[in-house]
Amino acid sequence: MNIYDVSEKSGVSIATVSRVLNGSPNVSEATKKKVLSVMEELGYTPNVFARGLGLNTMNTIGIMCSDSSDPFLANAVYYLEQNLRKNGYDAFLCCTGYELVNKQKYLQLLLGKRVDAVILVGSSFLEADNNGNKYIIEAAHKVPVMIINGYLAHPNIYCTVCDDYQATYDATNNLIKSGSRNILYLYSSKSYSGIQKLNGYKDAITSNNLSLKDSLMVCNSGDIETITEVLDKLYKNDSKFDAIITSEDHLAVGAIKFAKKNGIKIPKDLQVIGYNNSILSHCTDPEISSVDNHVEALSIATVTNLMRVLAKADVPNRTTLSNDLIKRETTRF
Amino acid sequence: MNIYDVSEKSGVSIATVSRVLNGSPNVSEATKKKVLSVMEELGYTPNVFARGLGLNTMNTIGIMCSDSSDPFLANAVYYLEQNLRKNGYDAFLCCTGYELVNKQKYLQLLLGKRVDAVILVGSSFLEADNNGNKYIIEAAHKVPVMIINGYLAHPNIYCTVCDDYQATYDATNNLIKSGSRNILYLYSSKSYSGIQKLNGYKDAITSNNLSLKDSLMVCNSGDIETITEVLDKLYKNDSKFDAIITSEDHLAVGAIKFAKKNGIKIPKDLQVIGYNNSILSHCTDPEISSVDNHVEALSIATVTNLMRVLAKADVPNRTTLSNDLIKRETTRF
Repeated sequence: MNIYDVSEKSGVSIATVSRVLNGSPNVSEATKKKVLSVMEELGYTPNVFARGLGLNTMNTIGIMCSDSSDPFLANAVYYLEQNLRKNGYDAFLCCTGYELVNKQKYLQLLLGKRVDAVILVGSSFLEADNNGNKYIIEAAHKVPVMIINGYLAHPNIYCTVCDDYQATYDATNNLIKSGSRNILYLYSSKSYSGIQKLNGYKDAITSNNLSLKDSLMVCNSGDIETITEVLDKLYKNDSKFDAIITSEDHLAVGAIKFAKKNGIKIPKDLQVIGYNNSILSHCTDPEISSVDNHVEALSIATVTNLMRVLAKADVPNRTTLSNDLIKRETTRF
Repeated sequence: MNIYDVSEKSGVSIATVSRVLNGSPNVSEATKKKVLSVMEELGYTPNVFARGLGLNTMNTIGIMCSDSSDPFLANAVYYLEQNLRKNGYDAFLCCTGYELVNKQKYLQLLLGKRVDAVILVGSSFLEADNNGNKYIIEAAHKVPVMIINGYLAHPNIYCTVCDDYQATYDATNNLIKSGSRNILYLYSSKSYSGIQKLNGYKDAITSNNLSLKDSLMVCNSGDIETITEVLDKLYKNDSKFDAIITSEDHLAVGAIKFAKKNGIKIPKDLQVIGYNNSILSHCTDPEISSVDNHVEALSIATVTNLMRVLAKADVPNRTTLSNDLIKRETTRF
């Protein structure tokens, strides 16, 4: 059952059916009535594809996110949906997982659904190898591609990023100024923003004339319990640290549990900084000082930029928002 | 640019273009070559709609969820996507928000995209007033509708629910057996599962010959800080309670903070039970005993049922899974 069946059965052209669907005034009442009654008879759902025949737009945006169970990504999707709806756009979301082949497949699927634009949420869509980004660049030949927290320099690709480098630099610098000397950097992924944060940490260490130690840069994608154990082992292997800065709040929760287990006083003997300012940072005792990457502002800026792109206005290739450290009970400054 | 342009330009029927798209063997090599070169020339993306012309299925399932920032819903979506993919299905997700008009609109949109079935995640899709459920029943005339954590008796609607009544009954009963007498029930919504839980609480109280008190049944949809204040006020207004059972983990986090603020010892003087067994229950000190509603099992059961429905096998209208209390540090039993 489609628009062509309706056209045939009602004896009018596809263009006329399309005009009826779009509420165009250039259709007689009699024709309109006939078309609508055929639709009813055939049980036809005016689909978005058909609507688009007339309007040349579906008012639908495709959103891709790698993992809806990640609180940062889930919140970004939530704010994107809300702001798209305010602007009269519907959104289709695909949760792609982390495998390149599935990301490629879903992007094709969205383009096949004739979305007006695609928003990629999270830096996990960008591969270090530029070949892995070809599918994004190809998509940008068809529709605008917005990227949140990732950067790719190419026409028709618009990126909104947090200044994760500066935020991690500042946080590390403040840990040093407040007396910490052996600062552990604990992170969970080597994504675009993961690398930005790591670089911010490294530069703050060296610009304070401290030495970078490989043993104090730890990458682990485990859960809270695993992180607690990892820190425990490190500590018992004599890798002494007096501050921990993390790339995600759940890693900071692991740090709090590790400190409690070993009777280490926070923030007196150990400072801890989380990242994302998520609900987790409010749950622990002490509550965690955490970098707020302003997921709502990031999502709003992305939708605002997208609306400008669709209106053919000028939009820079990269929009950078700053981050703030929300100070709670795990820092001395 | 669509399949009809390709048909016209290559001088073959739509059915033939469709056969090419579907890799059907009943097309000559010459025709195939011609169609593919026209597609290339027109920059045509074989869309899912076109694919479906031949296969009579898109292998695409629509998922609707009211709020992707809710951890339970976000996890359900994550497991649904994973399991659908394992079965060869793609998924489109719509985050509808809580307003009926948007839920209706998104369901129409999904049907317009010709999905093979729709999955509604979370009991917030069901209205107490049956008129509000008409749009779901209408959808069920077109495609199978699966509901997670909600129940609607109608052909072609298949519900997977947790036994929230029994879980809350058992939890409350255990609080009483371990010595609590004034048990506060704290919940955040009067949805289908919210009501099930409340009834479980009520029946456990009365079947133990204790009296139900309105002042001990508190509905509040606030954040952790608000909940902490609400409990503080109740306590100071002499509404003494010696146990708190909640409908969500974040409410239990509020209970822990309230107890700490007032120097109340957990679990000695106050037992606390959370719900959902989310990451939040691991973050606090003490860690929270919480009801595990097995979001993964629930999602797998839903996909399994859906695959059986699509294969025309018999599936019961309601599948009920049991819940378990995961005992941590906030209970005495």
